[in-house]
Amino acid sequence: MREVAVIGVGTSQFGKRSDVQLVELAWESIREALKDSGVSQKDVDFVVTGNLGMWSSEPLPAVVISEYAGLNPTGTMKVEAACATGSAAVMVAYSAIQAGLADIAMAVGVEKMNESPLHNVVEFIGRAGNYFWEFQNFGLTFPAYYALHAVSYMAKFGITEEDLGLVAVKNHYYGSKNPKAQFQKPISIEEVLKSPYVAYPLKLYDCSPVTDGSSCVILASEDVVREYTDTPVWIRGIGTASDTANLSKRKEFWGLKAARVAAEQAYKMAGVHEPLGFFDVAEVHDCFTIAEIMAYEDLGFAKQGEGVELLKEEQTYIGGKIPVNLDGGLKAKGHPIGATGISMIAELTKQLQQRVEKDRQTDIINGNALAHNVGGTGHYAYVTVLSLNRR
Amino acid sequence: MREVAVIGVGTSQFGKRSDVQLVELAWESIREALKDSGVSQKDVDFVVTGNLGMWSSEPLPAVVISEYAGLNPTGTMKVEAACATGSAAVMVAYSAIQAGLADIAMAVGVEKMNESPLHNVVEFIGRAGNYFWEFQNFGLTFPAYYALHAVSYMAKFGITEEDLGLVAVKNHYYGSKNPKAQFQKPISIEEVLKSPYVAYPLKLYDCSPVTDGSSCVILASEDVVREYTDTPVWIRGIGTASDTANLSKRKEFWGLKAARVAAEQAYKMAGVHEPLGFFDVAEVHDCFTIAEIMAYEDLGFAKQGEGVELLKEEQTYIGGKIPVNLDGGLKAKGHPIGATGISMIAELTKQLQQRVEKDRQTDIINGNALAHNVGGTGHYAYVTVLSLNRR
Repeated sequence: MREVAVIGVGTSQFGKRSDVQLVELAWESIREALKDSGVSQKDVDFVVTGNLGMWSSEPLPAVVISEYAGLNPTGTMKVEAACATGSAAVMVAYSAIQAGLADIAMAVGVEKMNESPLHNVVEFIGRAGNYFWEFQNFGLTFPAYYALHAVSYMAKFGITEEDLGLVAVKNHYYGSKNPKAQFQKPISIEEVLKSPYVAYPLKLYDCSPVTDGSSCVILASEDVVREYTDTPVWIRGIGTASDTANLSKRKEFWGLKAARVAAEQAYKMAGVHEPLGFFDVAEVHDCFTIAEIMAYEDLGFAKQGEGVELLKEEQTYIGGKIPVNLDGGLKAKGHPIGATGISMIAELTKQLQQRVEKDRQTDIINGNALAHNVGGTGHYAYVTVLSLNRR
Repeated sequence: MREVAVIGVGTSQFGKRSDVQLVELAWESIREALKDSGVSQKDVDFVVTGNLGMWSSEPLPAVVISEYAGLNPTGTMKVEAACATGSAAVMVAYSAIQAGLADIAMAVGVEKMNESPLHNVVEFIGRAGNYFWEFQNFGLTFPAYYALHAVSYMAKFGITEEDLGLVAVKNHYYGSKNPKAQFQKPISIEEVLKSPYVAYPLKLYDCSPVTDGSSCVILASEDVVREYTDTPVWIRGIGTASDTANLSKRKEFWGLKAARVAAEQAYKMAGVHEPLGFFDVAEVHDCFTIAEIMAYEDLGFAKQGEGVELLKEEQTYIGGKIPVNLDGGLKAKGHPIGATGISMIAELTKQLQQRVEKDRQTDIINGNALAHNVGGTGHYAYVTVLSLNRR
């Protein structure tokens, strides 16, 4: 089986982007990825667009983005896996190359969430839960879903609201060093604790923001990689799993089963036995602070109930055992849904190639990185293993 | 590269299906495909849902369909390529197997278009054109888009409204023999010509209907195919292409460039030199009668301007050179957008295996079949070559 590598990446400015149309926003990251890779539009054999778009006036974005970006007549489609949409798009591009349908494939994710009024966005995201039961009957939106996980975890493992806040402090710290992040201001634990409740125990600073943004990666088969780069980042493992969309049907709430299953698959494919000591850096899906703590445990960075210890010891900062979300994460970089998973892979590619801003670049020892991208509250999960080393 | 085959198919009753919810409708075809293949849910390694869903109250169907069908914790995503969504889903499932991410993958397409009032459906479909220019400024909906193709073709090649109507007569004839078709009544050319205009020269009987339905195919790698079937239908070629969504930017209107490019790719991959004489049967995207005539030419069944001759000579009926749409096509079987491309592949699988109703079963000589699925007016095109013969 021929291997597939990332040969170029691009990410737009994240934030409130009322200055651009959807296609222009997508183009910002496509243009950067084309330049970064040295690939021209005519060399791209297949394009996949990641977009959720419920809030968008452009219901079928794939073909208009391709047209605007000069990518016709290249084949295209849109994919969606709720907040894991970006990783799903990368999987489709990767698979198309493996299948011999493309030598070079592009995955571009884009979202303009500020197009609709804020209450609509929150409602729309809520529909990514179980729409006809938990959303429509109980009014559960996403802060409330993750709040249920948080209270369950707090009750079981005795962590505090302050412990949750440590995730926000870390990710805003790194966001402050990322010029493309939506929030570039460090925050203190006191500020987190003083922020208003959204859904107890989650406060404003426990929640990721509503974001516009795009991100793009260009993948190539091993047959052509060397024409474009000397430092390809190989996709070594992909795992994907699903779980019930009804939280009321789940047996436990202090982790996400789909993330554990997806990680197991990706680790098996990539030959990862012990993630700590293997990965130099990770991006995890911190849509809410509790989600990052659960991710540490679902990914095997900590035993169940011990995720907060990593934070207290600053093991997920640069210099620790496994630096996490050095771009600010969903929490501070922002969470433009269709773009998020792709921006994780774009960030990890640059980390592995030691190309990010100096004060948020971690040491690359083994050359391996991990992306963890969740849709819903673990309804979908995608885990991707990247490496400077071929199999 | 390991080969991939269809090992089981299922299709729901097409029509107005207010008797079922979206997940139940999807389950009708999933259940049939599981039974047809002998695969059980736990054996499925990856599921892809094809759905457009603008008219749906379920905005994120993939995970709820998986859950309802007992497919958790299998990884899943939704794909969309306008009216070519079904073929895009099959491509993703095929690619996942090729990539080694799955041995058995399912593609299920589903649409409940009757959920919203009719004028909304027509409006929503219209948005699959160029929304911000041709739809919003000129009010062009899909009958109007294809009417532009029809008048252009009529002006160039001198065909008549009666010629267009021959497509409707043929496809309603075969629809009358398909118990799952939305319309099961033969119609005469006089009835076509007497039907009211929707957008000149297209009349009611030139247009495919608004349909609810689902279709499912289960694919397997060559490593496991023989555990499930003695007559696998191999996917021998896939082509995909795109074109501008702005008709005002196109140079000619008597064919779809994206379909020609996609066919060329699929033919190259499958080693097809002369389609007539190679394929025993084809399904083409007859969303409007003019579309089937253009398809004959874009696929190489006839020279440009000569597609109508095939109809006049009944060469696309059983017994002719290349029987087309023996299930009634989009025109009579119906066009539940996300399901359409999958139902084409389901139909061709059964035709190749000689398992359809006796009076619409064609002779299988070479064991090759062709599916042609278009999104928008050629904004997307997918062409798939199926065969009883391995490479």
